[in-house]
Amino acid sequence: MESREISQAVISRLPRYFRYLGELRDKGIERVSSQELSDIMRVTASQIRQDLNNFGGFGQQGYGYNVEYLYEEIGKILGLNKEHNLIIVGAGHLGQALVNYMNFERRGFIFRGIFDSDEKIQGTQIRGITVRPMQEMESFVRENDIDIAVLTIPKTGAVQVAEQLVACGIKGFWNFAHVDLHVPDHIQVESVHLSDSLMKLSYNILSHGE
Amino acid sequence: MESREISQAVISRLPRYFRYLGELRDKGIERVSSQELSDIMRVTASQIRQDLNNFGGFGQQGYGYNVEYLYEEIGKILGLNKEHNLIIVGAGHLGQALVNYMNFERRGFIFRGIFDSDEKIQGTQIRGITVRPMQEMESFVRENDIDIAVLTIPKTGAVQVAEQLVACGIKGFWNFAHVDLHVPDHIQVESVHLSDSLMKLSYNILSHGE
Repeated sequence: MESREISQAVISRLPRYFRYLGELRDKGIERVSSQELSDIMRVTASQIRQDLNNFGGFGQQGYGYNVEYLYEEIGKILGLNKEHNLIIVGAGHLGQALVNYMNFERRGFIFRGIFDSDEKIQGTQIRGITVRPMQEMESFVRENDIDIAVLTIPKTGAVQVAEQLVACGIKGFWNFAHVDLHVPDHIQVESVHLSDSLMKLSYNILSHGE
Repeated sequence: MESREISQAVISRLPRYFRYLGELRDKGIERVSSQELSDIMRVTASQIRQDLNNFGGFGQQGYGYNVEYLYEEIGKILGLNKEHNLIIVGAGHLGQALVNYMNFERRGFIFRGIFDSDEKIQGTQIRGITVRPMQEMESFVRENDIDIAVLTIPKTGAVQVAEQLVACGIKGFWNFAHVDLHVPDHIQVESVHLSDSLMKLSYNILSHGE
């Protein structure tokens, strides 16, 4: 894999390529040109070629791309050929929804532990995983080689929990808390700000609709 | 409001300004300079000024920005001073999580109806709203002035449901289905691709970690 820095804009597009190639693969389609991909993905063929060129020349002049090969290569680039051990912090509705989301496990993202400060939820099971108290989180992370922590807790606790987890060797956060996390540079954070997303929709409806 | 097209990149940043200004407001802070905002938001003061200049000059030389005023103005730009009527399509874990997410209601996004094709869920209540069968969706949307449909259903049904709703006058989709929606240009779509987000995190851990 290229060692130079690929822009986050390109990285953001990779999962979408993966998704579309997966669908072509499911349909038994063996090859696809950048123009055909362009038509179904609604991005320019030129952007597709430029994006994929960041990772090596996958296509062949006159042939296009081999779907299976490209799908697997992008999967490897995205780290999907490895298993990831996840914990969920915050077993409310959103946390439960994520644990129950089948797609993640198929991609190698395995939920190993769930933690919550609410004693009424502790001890209950979500998809066979027992909800544990927060006091057990740090040792669990260390002992189970957890690399990703999913934060589905209110913002008031998120920053402190993140700090504790950074100290335990967590590699990345999938952050749903309504706050930005500031962690050391070598720790990755992917935030999903649901409120921001809905507000963006609201703006677009206001400014474009009717 | 300016009628020229503001870039989606700027629009994407607006909710974050709103969030930070809301926190300053909660702390009773009356004014803030672009440099101070820059320090807490970790974006350049120059970008802040440029972004906000798209919507009119909110700041005053030597004074900075009035927090309350800027907060309210950005809120208006985001369409938050209006109420929005939402339906949820798909009453599974994720749909339930969104209905239960308190923040949205405080911002004027009110869930009016919930729909699901699963007969076992129909008739049950989520936060006081009874889950209705899909057959009731179109008339409900027309009769209740629904502007936003939240799609938390599998991808297999999403495209068809979207088409039905476009025909009913829906203004925008908040789409959590694992598929891209292609709707007429005057209908807004904001997609939250959870799998894409997690894959981006996986890539960043692989390429930056250790």
